[in-house]
Amino acid sequence: MTRRETSDARTDSGLLSPVRAGTPVEEAVSDHAWLQALLDAEAALARAQARLGTVPRPAAGTITRAARAERLDLRALALAARETANPVVGLVRALTEVVAAEDPAAAEYVHRGSTSQDVLDTGAMLVCRRALGLIGADLTRTADALAALAGRHRDTVMAGRTLGLHAVPTTFGLKAAGWRQLAVDARARIAAARASLPVSLGGAAGTLAGYVECARLDADATDPDTYHDRLVDAFAAETGLVRPALPWHALRTPVADLAAALAFTTGALGKLAADVLVLTRTEIREVAEPAVAGRGSSSAMPHKRNPVLATLIRSAALQVPGLAGGLAQCLVTEDERSAGAWHAEWLLLRECLRLTGGAAHTAAELAEGLTVSPERMRHNLALTGSQVVTERLAAALAPRLGRAAAKVLLAEASATADREDRPLALVLGGLPDITAHFTEKALHDLLDPTAYTGAARALVTRALAAPAPSFHEPEVL
Amino acid sequence: MTRRETSDARTDSGLLSPVRAGTPVEEAVSDHAWLQALLDAEAALARAQARLGTVPRPAAGTITRAARAERLDLRALALAARETANPVVGLVRALTEVVAAEDPAAAEYVHRGSTSQDVLDTGAMLVCRRALGLIGADLTRTADALAALAGRHRDTVMAGRTLGLHAVPTTFGLKAAGWRQLAVDARARIAAARASLPVSLGGAAGTLAGYVECARLDADATDPDTYHDRLVDAFAAETGLVRPALPWHALRTPVADLAAALAFTTGALGKLAADVLVLTRTEIREVAEPAVAGRGSSSAMPHKRNPVLATLIRSAALQVPGLAGGLAQCLVTEDERSAGAWHAEWLLLRECLRLTGGAAHTAAELAEGLTVSPERMRHNLALTGSQVVTERLAAALAPRLGRAAAKVLLAEASATADREDRPLALVLGGLPDITAHFTEKALHDLLDPTAYTGAARALVTRALAAPAPSFHEPEVL
Amino acid sequence: MTRRETSDARTDSGLLSPVRAGTPVEEAVSDHAWLQALLDAEAALARAQARLGTVPRPAAGTITRAARAERLDLRALALAARETANPVVGLVRALTEVVAAEDPAAAEYVHRGSTSQDVLDTGAMLVCRRALGLIGADLTRTADALAALAGRHRDTVMAGRTLGLHAVPTTFGLKAAGWRQLAVDARARIAAARASLPVSLGGAAGTLAGYVECARLDADATDPDTYHDRLVDAFAAETGLVRPALPWHALRTPVADLAAALAFTTGALGKLAADVLVLTRTEIREVAEPAVAGRGSSSAMPHKRNPVLATLIRSAALQVPGLAGGLAQCLVTEDERSAGAWHAEWLLLRECLRLTGGAAHTAAELAEGLTVSPERMRHNLALTGSQVVTERLAAALAPRLGRAAAKVLLAEASATADREDRPLALVLGGLPDITAHFTEKALHDLLDPTAYTGAARALVTRALAAPAPSFHEPEVL
Amino acid sequence: MTRRETSDARTDSGLLSPVRAGTPVEEAVSDHAWLQALLDAEAALARAQARLGTVPRPAAGTITRAARAERLDLRALALAARETANPVVGLVRALTEVVAAEDPAAAEYVHRGSTSQDVLDTGAMLVCRRALGLIGADLTRTADALAALAGRHRDTVMAGRTLGLHAVPTTFGLKAAGWRQLAVDARARIAAARASLPVSLGGAAGTLAGYVECARLDADATDPDTYHDRLVDAFAAETGLVRPALPWHALRTPVADLAAALAFTTGALGKLAADVLVLTRTEIREVAEPAVAGRGSSSAMPHKRNPVLATLIRSAALQVPGLAGGLAQCLVTEDERSAGAWHAEWLLLRECLRLTGGAAHTAAELAEGLTVSPERMRHNLALTGSQVVTERLAAALAPRLGRAAAKVLLAEASATADREDRPLALVLGGLPDITAHFTEKALHDLLDPTAYTGAARALVTRALAAPAPSFHEPEVL
Repeated sequence: MTRRETSDARTDSGLLSPVRAGTPVEEAVSDHAWLQALLDAEAALARAQARLGTVPRPAAGTITRAARAERLDLRALALAARETANPVVGLVRALTEVVAAEDPAAAEYVHRGSTSQDVLDTGAMLVCRRALGLIGADLTRTADALAALAGRHRDTVMAGRTLGLHAVPTTFGLKAAGWRQLAVDARARIAAARASLPVSLGGAAGTLAGYVECARLDADATDPDTYHDRLVDAFAAETGLVRPALPWHALRTPVADLAAALAFTTGALGKLAADVLVLTRTEIREVAEPAVAGRGSSSAMPHKRNPVLATLIRSAALQVPGLAGGLAQCLVTEDERSAGAWHAEWLLLRECLRLTGGAAHTAAELAEGLTVSPERMRHNLALTGSQVVTERLAAALAPRLGRAAAKVLLAEASATADREDRPLALVLGGLPDITAHFTEKALHDLLDPTAYTGAARALVTRALAAPAPSFHEPEVL
Repeated sequence: MTRRETSDARTDSGLLSPVRAGTPVEEAVSDHAWLQALLDAEAALARAQARLGTVPRPAAGTITRAARAERLDLRALALAARETANPVVGLVRALTEVVAAEDPAAAEYVHRGSTSQDVLDTGAMLVCRRALGLIGADLTRTADALAALAGRHRDTVMAGRTLGLHAVPTTFGLKAAGWRQLAVDARARIAAARASLPVSLGGAAGTLAGYVECARLDADATDPDTYHDRLVDAFAAETGLVRPALPWHALRTPVADLAAALAFTTGALGKLAADVLVLTRTEIREVAEPAVAGRGSSSAMPHKRNPVLATLIRSAALQVPGLAGGLAQCLVTEDERSAGAWHAEWLLLRECLRLTGGAAHTAAELAEGLTVSPERMRHNLALTGSQVVTERLAAALAPRLGRAAAKVLLAEASATADREDRPLALVLGGLPDITAHFTEKALHDLLDPTAYTGAARALVTRALAAPAPSFHEPEVL
Repeated sequence: MTRRETSDARTDSGLLSPVRAGTPVEEAVSDHAWLQALLDAEAALARAQARLGTVPRPAAGTITRAARAERLDLRALALAARETANPVVGLVRALTEVVAAEDPAAAEYVHRGSTSQDVLDTGAMLVCRRALGLIGADLTRTADALAALAGRHRDTVMAGRTLGLHAVPTTFGLKAAGWRQLAVDARARIAAARASLPVSLGGAAGTLAGYVECARLDADATDPDTYHDRLVDAFAAETGLVRPALPWHALRTPVADLAAALAFTTGALGKLAADVLVLTRTEIREVAEPAVAGRGSSSAMPHKRNPVLATLIRSAALQVPGLAGGLAQCLVTEDERSAGAWHAEWLLLRECLRLTGGAAHTAAELAEGLTVSPERMRHNLALTGSQVVTERLAAALAPRLGRAAAKVLLAEASATADREDRPLALVLGGLPDITAHFTEKALHDLLDPTAYTGAARALVTRALAAPAPSFHEPEVL
Repeated sequence: MTRRETSDARTDSGLLSPVRAGTPVEEAVSDHAWLQALLDAEAALARAQARLGTVPRPAAGTITRAARAERLDLRALALAARETANPVVGLVRALTEVVAAEDPAAAEYVHRGSTSQDVLDTGAMLVCRRALGLIGADLTRTADALAALAGRHRDTVMAGRTLGLHAVPTTFGLKAAGWRQLAVDARARIAAARASLPVSLGGAAGTLAGYVECARLDADATDPDTYHDRLVDAFAAETGLVRPALPWHALRTPVADLAAALAFTTGALGKLAADVLVLTRTEIREVAEPAVAGRGSSSAMPHKRNPVLATLIRSAALQVPGLAGGLAQCLVTEDERSAGAWHAEWLLLRECLRLTGGAAHTAAELAEGLTVSPERMRHNLALTGSQVVTERLAAALAPRLGRAAAKVLLAEASATADREDRPLALVLGGLPDITAHFTEKALHDLLDPTAYTGAARALVTRALAAPAPSFHEPEVL
């Protein structure tokens, strides 16, 4: 890793964000990709206007060919954005120059009748579409891998843990089915958000007056009264985005929905990570992350194989809620276009996309390679010597002793077993209230943790049979 | 307001939260209501088990009759909750006592096979159903009132403002239609959340083993293999809640969805409030809050009529995102049931419901009584002497002078008008580049702000025609 | 816990917030306490004005006697607050009535020259002083108990864990000293915040004009030019609060500082809780929460003793950051007094105080009663058969084999030990590269985890010797 | 802005974050700067060990010369960080190669006895020191410019506004003094945080065992018992950072303090921005942002000069609290080093630094160039025809009519003035209760807003005289 390529003060290498470094989402939401998306929005607008006769078709063609990020100076645009509080003013100037170099007449039609926010918001939605597609695909991989795990371990009994303590038995299959359900829920929310990404078209204050005025000035633009309507449809068709109910410069529902879907996704994957971190602990070791040469090594300790994938996912799950909360607050924005609340969205949205994309990619890798140890699960389940089934005994004793008395008896027997460090079975075997009601064989059967998994098997079967039982069904991915 | 009734250190009067004090949601989410909902969950469970033969029907009847908040000591339960980290352990004990006093045999069936979280989560969903119903109804009131405003002011021209400055004209109708759209979007999200509130039924670690064991122990419980399935259905039927994909003790999708819907709602209403606060400013005075005797008075200044409703709504919009963000982070929870992340949800959820409910109620009052001054809108629109239509002039000049030159000419003329404090029309009338291309009449027409509202009228008509164009259609309210 | 006392829809029992139910902070920040603090501010203002001759001394006395929460109707005030967006307008009216009933002339001097925010902010600071005092005292208890633990377990060796895995040995003393350090840091921040709580005195728009005008009107008020200055001093003296740099109606530094100190405190205690939750896990069991009869019991499982104190603390640590973040955002407030941002503070601040106070009280109980098991620590430390000291071996081998080769050798030996489930010592004993350089005895010594605790002992000694090494030293508590 | 330089998918141009694009902080916290800081930490550690004889001085020299970011491959390190969850493992490998190429013997001493977190945390503190220095300097510029404004406008009367409405008069001097006070408060918090940035030195699990072991192995390292102590001091001396109370791998006080100071700073500057945005509104126009050619232009509207600086500052103020809240939650971290909570800090901390740095730089520019219009202030103050002094009249009337009656009289007169659109003076002049008590001249004087500014002048003088009245005095900048 000694030097092989150029870096400078403006390199975003991912050094501080390993959860996403090198994952596909990174390129999809880079500054370069964002610039290209803004240019795609400009070009799509020109083509939409050309469909309706308010931009000459050759001009739209020239604008589309010119609208390449490679032909502009990204850094200069970023610096110029300080003068106008957004990068589109400078971008229009620069794009106009590029177009003019090819065809001065076409340059008159760049950004015609438009406003910065139409371009920036539409471009942002184009970036989101690509990023959400990647995230959705990685969630599908994750869900599929977890479904396979759940199916394979349908009957793998392990300790169910609540408040950190062994509670009653469960199965690893049920645990994996729960992780999968969250991934499925996340995929549904991502898909719903992706299917409703709208174009932004409002003109300077949301009335589309600039666009309409251009149509009015053009003798051959037919039916000016419906022009705005047809323009929105044409713009939606050119971009592949959805037509919104109203111009949304100051009605930020789409951004709030995105924020909620992304925060949900990292939270859902964070649950998987939290469980994996518990189960890989030295004392527990019921699962292990995929073994890859060099993966998880420590700078100090040769013996360690750190759960790095779960660690990275958790790091994203800790970051995204705060960022998404910031986006939710940008709903509260004054006037036809805001002085600050809109401008606060861009970085937050990009980081939410990037961290969630990284987390989903990492989760797919984790789910596909997770190693499970049924032996360790059995070993740990035996640690408490049947205390994990006291609930069952209490139920069995209740009809004989009354429920309250049964619970007291078992609480005391458990305490005795702990205090004297003896198996609970032995303690119980010495109690007249037990021997009066159960044969040794019956007691032994009652104390078998593997026979007390309730409906776990049936729950797994049912959950896996329903591919996406969530109420927000993905319409598009 | 001198003393008339009892208060003490445990009175939640709403003193610190006027946005919700005395609104209907307050009672729906009070501690008392929460306790009753927990008891309703216990009673519904007993009745569901009675349907399947694992609790005697008379016992279920006795439990249902006993399950009244009035018969328990709320404060004692709250204090006892510190010993077990949740209030259900104590509640079961207390309810059992009440039942036993009537029928000791029935007491054996209280909370049969169950676990604290089943009761608390189901009770919470019952509270949410009622609160979301109130919120939805107030959003409908709000949306209806805003629709009426939008219709009435379809042609009321006003300054469109961006970054705080007059940009181009818009209409108050379009502004109100935007506010309404947000209310409609919020209602859709609240309705979707309400329609998917699930029962919680998992038993100690999500396997339903306790419930299944009881069925197994009862000779007459038919078909133990499908018992758990039928029990969930019966519990859903008794509570009116939805059947979840899996027990969700540690899969907190429902809570995250609620948090997102509630944060969206206060944000959406916060936009209305932010605009009302701008438009009521002393210098602007285009709208006024409903005039109610005594409302909005100040402790110091006799002349003031403060915009208190918008102020209260904004206060909620500033509080809920942080609370909801906390709920979103509770998705990251380890094990079959969490040590802390679950416990962190309760207060946050209640406050989100209460603040959102107060904000929605306040918004309905604001929307229904808002006074609009078309005169002040015209007055303000005239302040800049036609600068508000420079965009239109630029478009009209572009074919004559070229777009860049047209923009420069108008920027300079605007600056001159500002510097010399003269109307823009006069400045323009003295410019050869203008007089060469436009007659005095044509210039006058171009400079009329009321003639430059683009598609505003059509947008309002279209938006009002679509009752809920959002993609999450309310299924139930 | 069946019914013994009155409750209704307005009872704040703490049912949803067990971390604070019944702890001392609850009463200190109740609505009743808040109302009393507002009245205390009114009374202190009257007395301060009496000191300067702008209120007759007998009137100030009457006002002080009348200013008792018991004499006002808390709920009516809360409801009235909706009409004015804050409770002080109604409070002034009600207090004036109470005073007038005793002495009509004195009633003219209630709230003289004042404004709602002066009273509400000053009252809030009085509530904070009391609550921070309780929090500080509980942090001291916590820190002292942790210091005792650290001292007692200075030489109790345990596994140091990083990323969930055994890393190298540490001592429980060092762990406890770290927890204590955080409690000490928290106490310092709480103390600093408490020592700088300011009075609020600005009048209607922060110029103190109302107060100054009263002085001007009173013939006997000497030296009107310095009156405002002396009034602030007198008000500070009467309340025991600090004199601020400027009226802070819209300069919310004190609230932001409080929010930061409270969020820090729950975070610091949350670290303690997170560690206790790990160490009480069934597989680890190195510490246990204080055993109290009935504490930690489950509604389903007789054997469980849940770590309820740590659970409650963690629940607070998950809630407060979002609430405190909301307070930090209230810094961004427009004008001389805000329409909404101020109003959003009250509930958030109270909940931050209450949750932090509950967490601190719970932490003191946890720290004072924590049970430590050196046996289990030794047992767990032995689990990996000396892998926990591979770092040491690598260091010892480096001069012989080169560092890189030493690390590779040990990584491979560790992997072999894992794969073959053999103690690392045995694996190493069979390697020529090891036997060539170390005698059996030397190897044995190197592999003894209890001999590899670095500077742990000295660090504990040093940390305990420095009572509060943090840079913000508590000045007042 | 057509293409002049290289950009690619890894260029962080600032396109989405104009508040910081091109400001000095950008380079100080870039990935490149961060990498150099990690290398600086490695080099400082080697030199510190050389001071104590555990690394040969020539080796430390070689390491220091080799530790240049230019010699490593930033992107490759970032990608490798995914394998180990942090970038230091790869960095140590790469640095060792570079050192080995010069002197293989020196390569044995790279990262000797150390662990990833020691290097990453120390490097982060070095980055913070530089960034906080820049932020502090820009806050000083801001505070100085605001002090000049306050002094200059000590007697410039304007409307004090509360809840958006004219309340009573104030002065622009007092307003600017308030902004300055917040900048001074922010500077004090930044300075305090900067003065306490600690080195991180704990070794693998916070015991410094690795370092101590190296000293033990070296025959000539004197006094191993105090070695760790001297090493921390030497490391602090080499880096210029502070010695912490304890190793802080899992005791994240420094990061929480930084987060609080940075969130405070953007909030404080956000208040300035919020006020400027109000005061630049078209209807108000009391201040204007510095006029710079091209600044604030719109892509659509030639006449606009948008308040872009305030917009950018506000955008930062909306983003940082959520990011800082995320950092505060990272306090809750389990074990000796966390699996995820530490990893979540890096990006959040960098963005907080970068956004705050950009906001401070922008605020300095805004404060230094702000244009103030006393004429517009007078004009606006006259808008309500003396209603802005009803408080004063109420005070003057109270001794004659009783306070309550005086308030009612003035509320009614104000309402009449509003309803009939007449100046309040005229309305009052027709009321017997007024004419009975005041001559025309006396009434005229009472109604002069410029004579009712209370203590505004004295408050400004006092505030400006106290250079930093905050309790956290900057010790170092």
